[in-house]
Amino acid sequence: MKSYQHILLAIDFSTHSTDVSSQASDIARRYQAKLSVCHIIEDIAITDLAYEPMISFDMEIKQAMMEAGKRQLSELSGKLEVPADNQWLEFGNPVHDIVRIADEQRIDLIVIGSHGRHGIRRLLGSTANGVLHHATCDVLAVRLTE
Amino acid sequence: MKSYQHILLAIDFSTHSTDVSSQASDIARRYQAKLSVCHIIEDIAITDLAYEPMISFDMEIKQAMMEAGKRQLSELSGKLEVPADNQWLEFGNPVHDIVRIADEQRIDLIVIGSHGRHGIRRLLGSTANGVLHHATCDVLAVRLTE
Repeated sequence: MKSYQHILLAIDFSTHSTDVSSQASDIARRYQAKLSVCHIIEDIAITDLAYEPMISFDMEIKQAMMEAGKRQLSELSGKLEVPADNQWLEFGNPVHDIVRIADEQRIDLIVIGSHGRHGIRRLLGSTANGVLHHATCDVLAVRLTE
Repeated sequence: MKSYQHILLAIDFSTHSTDVSSQASDIARRYQAKLSVCHIIEDIAITDLAYEPMISFDMEIKQAMMEAGKRQLSELSGKLEVPADNQWLEFGNPVHDIVRIADEQRIDLIVIGSHGRHGIRRLLGSTANGVLHHATCDVLAVRLTE
């Protein structure tokens, strides 16, 4: 049996996401495992080719989202004592990039928040479900109460 | 933050399911949590109304499956030191009944094997995915290598 040695907390900074980070930190402590953190900002193209000004608008929004993400990730990593080398902040597809980072970093447990079956996430399919489907390691889905 | 106090191992006795039980036992030990075990035998009606003898055939198969399940569950529970009061063996719908038992027993973590995206389970949707979707508590999906 494998004991967890490197845990990846995939965080989206939504409501109650501190529950997920506390749980990840606790399990890392109990397994004496290394903890890494990633935050993938969903890259939704909002550019409309018919309106050129949208392109710069898009770039500005991306820049602002990146800045906000950087601030939140840095604050969280400080709390969890995760060094800079174990932090990932990227634009992309959350499911794809969480699984990719987990593979690259030889993660053995991904900790992620799960919103359950309510609301729009039921229709769209949640990130937690996608990660569970594609991950090559174990996945701990922390139930978020909404 | 909640610490896990009662963990439910949902076991299907498929190949590599000992990986799941070892992981469940280990996490229960690290959290000093109570461990319960359930095994839900999928209730597939194989009765064909045009052939009456099928009914008794069906009953015999069910009986045999129940006996086999009982033996496997008892053996596993012995290994994991799970008392009889914390064992569940039922015919039913695995997703529905795992979630129901978890709710009834106030489980805070379900541990279940996950087969990933390969083979027929990708088409049918796995039990792990269904449990993640419907559970009201945390879910640890243990990746099974096939």
